[in-house]
Amino acid sequence: MNEKLIVCLTAVASIMALLFAVLKAKKVLGFDEGTDAMKKISLSVRQGANAYLNRQYRIVIIFFAVMFAVLGIMALNGLLTGFVPFAFLTGGFFSGLSGFIGMKIATSANARTANACREGLNKGLRVAFSAGSVMGFTVVGLGLLDITIWLFLLKFVFKLENADVTGAMLTFGMGASSMALFARVGGGIFTKAADVGADLVGKVEAGIPEDDPRNPAVIADNVGDNVGDVAGMGADLYESYVGSIISSCALGVAAFKDFKAMALPLCIAAVGVLCSIIGTFLVKTKEGASQKQLLRALSKGTNFSAILIAAVTLPLVYVILGNFKIYFAILAGLVAGVLIGQSTEYYTSDSYKPTQNLAKSSETGTATIIISGLSVGMLSTLIPIVIVSICVLVAYFVSGGGESAAKGLYGIALAAVGMLSTLGITLATDAYGPVADNAGGIAEMAGLDKSVRERTDALDSLGNTTAATGKGFAIGSAALTALALMASYIDKIKTIDGGAFADKITDLNINNPTVLIGLFIGACLPFVFAALTMNSVGRAAQSVVIEVRRQFKEIKGIMTGEADADYAKCVDLCTKSSLHEMVLPTLVAVAVPVIVGMVLGCTGVVGMLAGATASGFLMAVFMSNSGGAWDNAKKYIESGQFGGKGSDNHKSAVVGDTVGDPFKDTSGPSINILIKLLSMVSIVFAALVVKFSLL
Amino acid sequence: MNEKLIVCLTAVASIMALLFAVLKAKKVLGFDEGTDAMKKISLSVRQGANAYLNRQYRIVIIFFAVMFAVLGIMALNGLLTGFVPFAFLTGGFFSGLSGFIGMKIATSANARTANACREGLNKGLRVAFSAGSVMGFTVVGLGLLDITIWLFLLKFVFKLENADVTGAMLTFGMGASSMALFARVGGGIFTKAADVGADLVGKVEAGIPEDDPRNPAVIADNVGDNVGDVAGMGADLYESYVGSIISSCALGVAAFKDFKAMALPLCIAAVGVLCSIIGTFLVKTKEGASQKQLLRALSKGTNFSAILIAAVTLPLVYVILGNFKIYFAILAGLVAGVLIGQSTEYYTSDSYKPTQNLAKSSETGTATIIISGLSVGMLSTLIPIVIVSICVLVAYFVSGGGESAAKGLYGIALAAVGMLSTLGITLATDAYGPVADNAGGIAEMAGLDKSVRERTDALDSLGNTTAATGKGFAIGSAALTALALMASYIDKIKTIDGGAFADKITDLNINNPTVLIGLFIGACLPFVFAALTMNSVGRAAQSVVIEVRRQFKEIKGIMTGEADADYAKCVDLCTKSSLHEMVLPTLVAVAVPVIVGMVLGCTGVVGMLAGATASGFLMAVFMSNSGGAWDNAKKYIESGQFGGKGSDNHKSAVVGDTVGDPFKDTSGPSINILIKLLSMVSIVFAALVVKFSLL
Repeated sequence: MNEKLIVCLTAVASIMALLFAVLKAKKVLGFDEGTDAMKKISLSVRQGANAYLNRQYRIVIIFFAVMFAVLGIMALNGLLTGFVPFAFLTGGFFSGLSGFIGMKIATSANARTANACREGLNKGLRVAFSAGSVMGFTVVGLGLLDITIWLFLLKFVFKLENADVTGAMLTFGMGASSMALFARVGGGIFTKAADVGADLVGKVEAGIPEDDPRNPAVIADNVGDNVGDVAGMGADLYESYVGSIISSCALGVAAFKDFKAMALPLCIAAVGVLCSIIGTFLVKTKEGASQKQLLRALSKGTNFSAILIAAVTLPLVYVILGNFKIYFAILAGLVAGVLIGQSTEYYTSDSYKPTQNLAKSSETGTATIIISGLSVGMLSTLIPIVIVSICVLVAYFVSGGGESAAKGLYGIALAAVGMLSTLGITLATDAYGPVADNAGGIAEMAGLDKSVRERTDALDSLGNTTAATGKGFAIGSAALTALALMASYIDKIKTIDGGAFADKITDLNINNPTVLIGLFIGACLPFVFAALTMNSVGRAAQSVVIEVRRQFKEIKGIMTGEADADYAKCVDLCTKSSLHEMVLPTLVAVAVPVIVGMVLGCTGVVGMLAGATASGFLMAVFMSNSGGAWDNAKKYIESGQFGGKGSDNHKSAVVGDTVGDPFKDTSGPSINILIKLLSMVSIVFAALVVKFSLL
Repeated sequence: MNEKLIVCLTAVASIMALLFAVLKAKKVLGFDEGTDAMKKISLSVRQGANAYLNRQYRIVIIFFAVMFAVLGIMALNGLLTGFVPFAFLTGGFFSGLSGFIGMKIATSANARTANACREGLNKGLRVAFSAGSVMGFTVVGLGLLDITIWLFLLKFVFKLENADVTGAMLTFGMGASSMALFARVGGGIFTKAADVGADLVGKVEAGIPEDDPRNPAVIADNVGDNVGDVAGMGADLYESYVGSIISSCALGVAAFKDFKAMALPLCIAAVGVLCSIIGTFLVKTKEGASQKQLLRALSKGTNFSAILIAAVTLPLVYVILGNFKIYFAILAGLVAGVLIGQSTEYYTSDSYKPTQNLAKSSETGTATIIISGLSVGMLSTLIPIVIVSICVLVAYFVSGGGESAAKGLYGIALAAVGMLSTLGITLATDAYGPVADNAGGIAEMAGLDKSVRERTDALDSLGNTTAATGKGFAIGSAALTALALMASYIDKIKTIDGGAFADKITDLNINNPTVLIGLFIGACLPFVFAALTMNSVGRAAQSVVIEVRRQFKEIKGIMTGEADADYAKCVDLCTKSSLHEMVLPTLVAVAVPVIVGMVLGCTGVVGMLAGATASGFLMAVFMSNSGGAWDNAKKYIESGQFGGKGSDNHKSAVVGDTVGDPFKDTSGPSINILIKLLSMVSIVFAALVVKFSLL
């Protein structure tokens, strides 16, 4: 096994991904932005999004500075290696950068997609999918680049031991997760406060359509899509991607004490990037393609990439490890991701019974559609949990977990890597949704022909289906990665100071009271976290509601179109309140593992991680799927079922959709990050906890 | 330690409790039922409730017959002792009987309370509280009686070993839990289907007041209160009470191999019964007492009982065990119950910020009050989980868990016994709420003077406060008992066939994949269970909505009072659909532990129990408190805040309350039973699982 060859491979893959992203970005920017009105709207959205991100980064920098100081002090006192504080910073930096670039390209592609849709559906798809590809390949490219640079530095320049290499690398995972949480929570609050605010007053009270330029919150709503659904998702998936790779590197080293076990996840990731690039070339349609054909075009790309990866990984595993067995762990991960995605689609798409029945329940009023939506979400947790369970069992036992637990845990981590290996292209098909959504908004506001909006809507609804698959990968990989990180934590404790504290973590029996109490507290965290983020959305939305009502009342001529609404005020309001609100949840996520560790010791921390992973997975699935089902039930009614648009049933469905908004776009996805951040923080503060804890 | 003396003590206590209940029942029946109209309404409610329970028991008997056969076959094959099938039956019988007697007295006391309220608040309180006392002391009396009889038979007649005695006793816990789950789920679906159906069409669509005799579902609504809130609660708390005592007996025998460890929980329970009886004599008020004084009267009774128990238990522990330490475990349980109750009250009473803010959130519409209510419930999980955690830690370590885990687990079980020791009187103050609620309904329907309804409302709202405390005890004790039962399960596996299978349960490490997967599946169960029960309520309610709409449309003169509504049809509809719907959730609860055991083995079962306990506790608190907060936010608005009755804000709050109904009265309380039933089933099927499981 030539170690340098591996690093070269990942370097090449990451650079190819970034180059590919640059090419795609150039392609997007080569299209025309359309009419002056479109350019003006697009500029407002871009400015708003830029202003938000600039202010967000200014707050985040304070957090990173403080954490850098804390980690620095710990490093000076021998509780961490000296690289850790710097690794932490780069993780945060690259995660933020992923979001930033994604947002930049999305805000540039919105008007261009709308304009392209004036010429045809196909051209619109090309622009939007290219923008999505920029995002997808930026995330995987930057992720691999960060890993490659650190690997090169730590292993070849500073010549650290493998275990110390992975230890430092886990810290940039913590940096990435912290940044991702800020981005997801802040962006999620922004987008939903604007959305809820715009809908409640504009649609429900004033009775004007969605994306109507008379609505003062309409630009804020579009800005929100970019800072939440795009920048937030970029940072989030950067974190997932990097987290899965480094946790399997760490477990690989623990299991095999050999570089080859680190090499495998890196190679899978590199191969995944290359296969994903190839896959994008298959996404082509003939002019005048139907929606089904469009979907088939997208699926062709992702399926081809997945099959290619599955084919290439088989010999790869054999070359690196000398046997095939662990290959099936990777395959299990890939398959599980697809199946969870299909389950998500079943529960949230209006082509299936659950969402159709949900739409029907609007006939007996608002209360029943709320109750039914909650129960659809709760029930939808069953299949994913069974899939993940089977995946864990398979990954564990095929990797040799029967003989050595360490090998089995490595298999679980590799399943997550397998699941995320197609991220380049799945994220491309996922990220193009918000672009199409925004294009629709711009088409509406710029008063373009109705056919344009119809085309962007077709793209958008296609995006919902592909997004369901994307969510499957994000949620499934989060659970597997969190389990892997928990194992890394246990491993870490055992190796601190040459094993001096190994006896502190021997009793991980589930009926050891510290483990049990940790489990209780960990299971509680996603509930508290969901409550905090929902409250934040509620508070921020209320301020938008009041402002929009004020503008409708005070600005004369706003309804007749004689006077312009004050869009900037709403953007500013959303920015302020979302940034204000994003701080507490993140602090909770960082502080709790340290506090629990200090009080209950490291067995309590392990319990907490297990509890948070189980309950977090359930809450994330529940909230995402309830939200998705309400959204599509509303759209199903709007398509003319059960009374159609404007009926009482529709009004009930709008309430359901509004409740679902923070569920699916703020709380749900944030919990995915939360469960990994808890583990990362626990690992970084392990030495502190083990030396100074009460129990 | 004179063993027979202990049995005599429990026999005396149980008989005194039952005698006291008989006396109180006679007192209640001595009051007059009032006008002819009142008698007629009361009779309809009673007949409806009787008819429901009769049909429920007919279905339940089939289940018990099948289970009896299954257990019988297992016993014949040496997988269980021969007493087990019979113990199972008695548990179910007594649990059902508790509910039945409670329902009988409640339906007899409704009209009498309303009539007494015509004379004064004080007399009304006396009748209602006496009825509550019948229920409270029936439950504890029957519980202790069942335990005493079996203890006598197994220990003194058949002279079994202590461990075999507790093994058989755990089975009647399973019978009690199964019956309780049927009663809670069936009754919960009935009451909420009727309530939601009556409210949605009557209040929201037709605009007639609550409990208006023109509403065809009004009798069904009253029947529902009796079969759900009374009969369901009776069976539920019988199960909690018995479960906590027998699980601590079992753990005591495991820890000390001595009868004295079984004697302690029995003595605490017996002393608790006697102290509770004494406490009831303190519940007296002067004529013309204010609501605050009434509450103080009730609190005086419960607080005095609690202090008395705390005082008497101290020497008791010393006499039985020879040292004081474990006393603090019992005290921790008592205190934790009170604190969880106070936390419940804080989050759900309109005297405090959370519910007031919830009411305020109605100003921005229905969606925001739903979002806020969900987040109040989720956030409210934090304090109870911390309280339970501290209680577990204290109970474990003061009982000597540091040296011997078995002793520590015994301490946890005793904390649950301590928490439930005041059940006689706390249940009396809890059960009188539904009686007062129904009295109000009768007052309304019989057209009594407005002052009567005001008085019953005062009693009812008082009941809400005491019910909050009662819920704290029910939820807290469920978590502690479930943990104790989990420990009993582990212990059981270790002792099957003289320890032949002990190696199957050695690796309970939380990162053992079977434990982890069990944890995932267990944590998922409360979500699935909540979804199933909410769906059931939804379906049943929809059928009521359709029927009520039909009657309003088809029966001419129904709105002017010239024609009578067809009440019986609605009662029948609720009965049919709730009985139909209660079967699946119960089968899930019984089947899943066996399936999980067969596939994952007993380590998987332990993981499942831990996961279900953690997530079940959280879901139960979340759902109960969200529901409670919505209910009281609505009442707060009705009291004239934020626009008052009939305003748009009120309409939004009514939707919140309707969503909260199945939360707090069906799904939430059922989950409490679920987590214990899962453990009981696991224990009973332990031998089967350990001998035939795949892993």
